[in-house]
Amino acid sequence: MDDHLKWQETEAKLIEDCTIFELYESKRESKSGLSGTFYLLKSRDWVNIVPVLTDSRGEERFLMVKQYRQGADKLTIEFPAGLVEKDEHPEKAAGRELLEETGFRAGTLQLIGKIMPNPAFMTNCCYTYLARDLRKVDDQNLDDLEQLEVLEVPVHEVASKIGRGCYLNSMTLIALHWYLRPGGKAP
Amino acid sequence: MDDHLKWQETEAKLIEDCTIFELYESKRESKSGLSGTFYLLKSRDWVNIVPVLTDSRGEERFLMVKQYRQGADKLTIEFPAGLVEKDEHPEKAAGRELLEETGFRAGTLQLIGKIMPNPAFMTNCCYTYLARDLRKVDDQNLDDLEQLEVLEVPVHEVASKIGRGCYLNSMTLIALHWYLRPGGKAP
Repeated sequence: MDDHLKWQETEAKLIEDCTIFELYESKRESKSGLSGTFYLLKSRDWVNIVPVLTDSRGEERFLMVKQYRQGADKLTIEFPAGLVEKDEHPEKAAGRELLEETGFRAGTLQLIGKIMPNPAFMTNCCYTYLARDLRKVDDQNLDDLEQLEVLEVPVHEVASKIGRGCYLNSMTLIALHWYLRPGGKAP
Repeated sequence: MDDHLKWQETEAKLIEDCTIFELYESKRESKSGLSGTFYLLKSRDWVNIVPVLTDSRGEERFLMVKQYRQGADKLTIEFPAGLVEKDEHPEKAAGRELLEETGFRAGTLQLIGKIMPNPAFMTNCCYTYLARDLRKVDDQNLDDLEQLEVLEVPVHEVASKIGRGCYLNSMTLIALHWYLRPGGKAP
């Protein structure tokens, strides 16, 4: 019944391979007779990991990473995150990114949400996994240009600071939303 | 104290002007002696509007828009949203986008959250405004390639469906989070 709103690609041209995404120019026509050219970023899917530690008093803390972000020109504190490799299951990517960025291995990984970062011009999804039963098993294993500092932050602190200071990445807000919503946490 | 994590741009080159953003190649050096080239999208800020209607039984409904999204190749249901124009205040942009996309004018607009869509490679912020005291004053006023259908959806339905079906835009999740969090709503 919504067919009149749909569009179809008639031609696509690669403009630039930007490593973490490819910029395309896509010519498209709508069922209702419109035509236009759109810029699209084709990207691999992303994973966001919410690693939860519980201290001796039962207080829950997130394992997070502090890093410099080139787009923002600012330091951010975020959940560990990364790209899903070709032919890799998102859950495997979540475990791998957590291990690389923090040196922690998750005993359990549970998918708690899935969303598209930007359906207007990006083609990919972001999967959020809850990671529990964490054990420090290794040192960080970072790419050449990555500098990440691992830190532990109480859940209530992230919930109250999100959107302010270093807590300015929307992907971290999204993961927090999935974690906090009723039924979002593992039993 | 975090100076060792910081980077500075030494050279920037425009690769492509994509209308809604510009793709740049940015050469940068870190305080700790690293150097690299990064792709960045320079974009105007975005606004997200959460328009709330209350029916005769006191139930709250969001005013939302259904549209085809070229990145997703799917129909989405989202909050009204758009770009902040040059020299425009985000609040003014919120009122303008709401009026253009739905024909409704807001009696009050309240900033309830601010976040960066992607600080890794995008330079912009997204402001979310709560819109109340809504009045239908005009028809839609859309761009040539925009086809938006306006609909009303109960708040609880959006909260339960977010991430599924047509509710797949992360910007809508973000706006919903700001609306639902304690203290997020207007009194």
